[in-house]
Amino acid sequence: MAKQPKKLDELFHDTLKDIYYAEKKILATLPKMAKAAQSPQLKAAFEKHRGETEGQIERLDQVFAAIQKKPQGKTCAAIVGITDEGAEVMKEYKGSPALDAGLLAAAQAVEHYEISRYGTLRAWAQEMGLRDAASLLQETLREEEATDKALTGLAQSAINQAAEG
Amino acid sequence: MAKQPKKLDELFHDTLKDIYYAEKKILATLPKMAKAAQSPQLKAAFEKHRGETEGQIERLDQVFAAIQKKPQGKTCAAIVGITDEGAEVMKEYKGSPALDAGLLAAAQAVEHYEISRYGTLRAWAQEMGLRDAASLLQETLREEEATDKALTGLAQSAINQAAEG
Repeated sequence: MAKQPKKLDELFHDTLKDIYYAEKKILATLPKMAKAAQSPQLKAAFEKHRGETEGQIERLDQVFAAIQKKPQGKTCAAIVGITDEGAEVMKEYKGSPALDAGLLAAAQAVEHYEISRYGTLRAWAQEMGLRDAASLLQETLREEEATDKALTGLAQSAINQAAEG
Repeated sequence: MAKQPKKLDELFHDTLKDIYYAEKKILATLPKMAKAAQSPQLKAAFEKHRGETEGQIERLDQVFAAIQKKPQGKTCAAIVGITDEGAEVMKEYKGSPALDAGLLAAAQAVEHYEISRYGTLRAWAQEMGLRDAASLLQETLREEEATDKALTGLAQSAINQAAEG
């Protein structure tokens, strides 16, 4: 019997596993970034986002439930690469006035990856008529966009000046 | 003699090498994505963005010149991971009605990485008073944002429905 072609529901499920893995990776990475950050505001921003990330994982659990699947992650090469870059910054800029600017930039790269994934997943959920899933994904998307904006504000108000040393 | 701490100018230069590598990787990847895409509009969007990417690399050459450095790339783990995911979609969804939706999502992940990087680089250039560099980076940032928007429009107007098969 020929294999059924993979359709949007399967792509949605695959991408959900990808972001589930990514969120868990981010949850494990944020405390390291908070610890490394020199500025108390940046530390606080990372700690706040850690709490939000826990809530975002819970929402993903609910999205898995909405499609009658078990929550499950799948290695996401993108987030591995993005967080590896952040780790490189932590190592190479340790003790440097530019460390926080580099950490903040790494965090914004993470946020933008998530914004792209949640935007895509929400659109696919809408297309398939999965209203509850779409609204959960929308809620997280708004949170990620707000985090990105807050990080931009922090960069402009303090972190980038400090980086000039 | 103790090593000088790395400052914002060095972080800027490092990140410039990172996005230079990323743009060249994207330039090499877009023709493969255009070839794989089933929808003529999506093919055209990838081909158009290939042309834009060439212009963006030229702008980066000018930014390197503005800081008196030779244009040079440095392996960017993030873009390697993001494009690896795109390659996985091409392989796993070959012949599937969901292929184009997956390719489009992969392209948006790339766009968002670039949006985050160019936003950061522009802010750093402004902070350091590098006006010409900031305006070149701003120009590319606008282009990437427009590409992302155009891809969202394409997803909503045609690609996501087709993916339901």
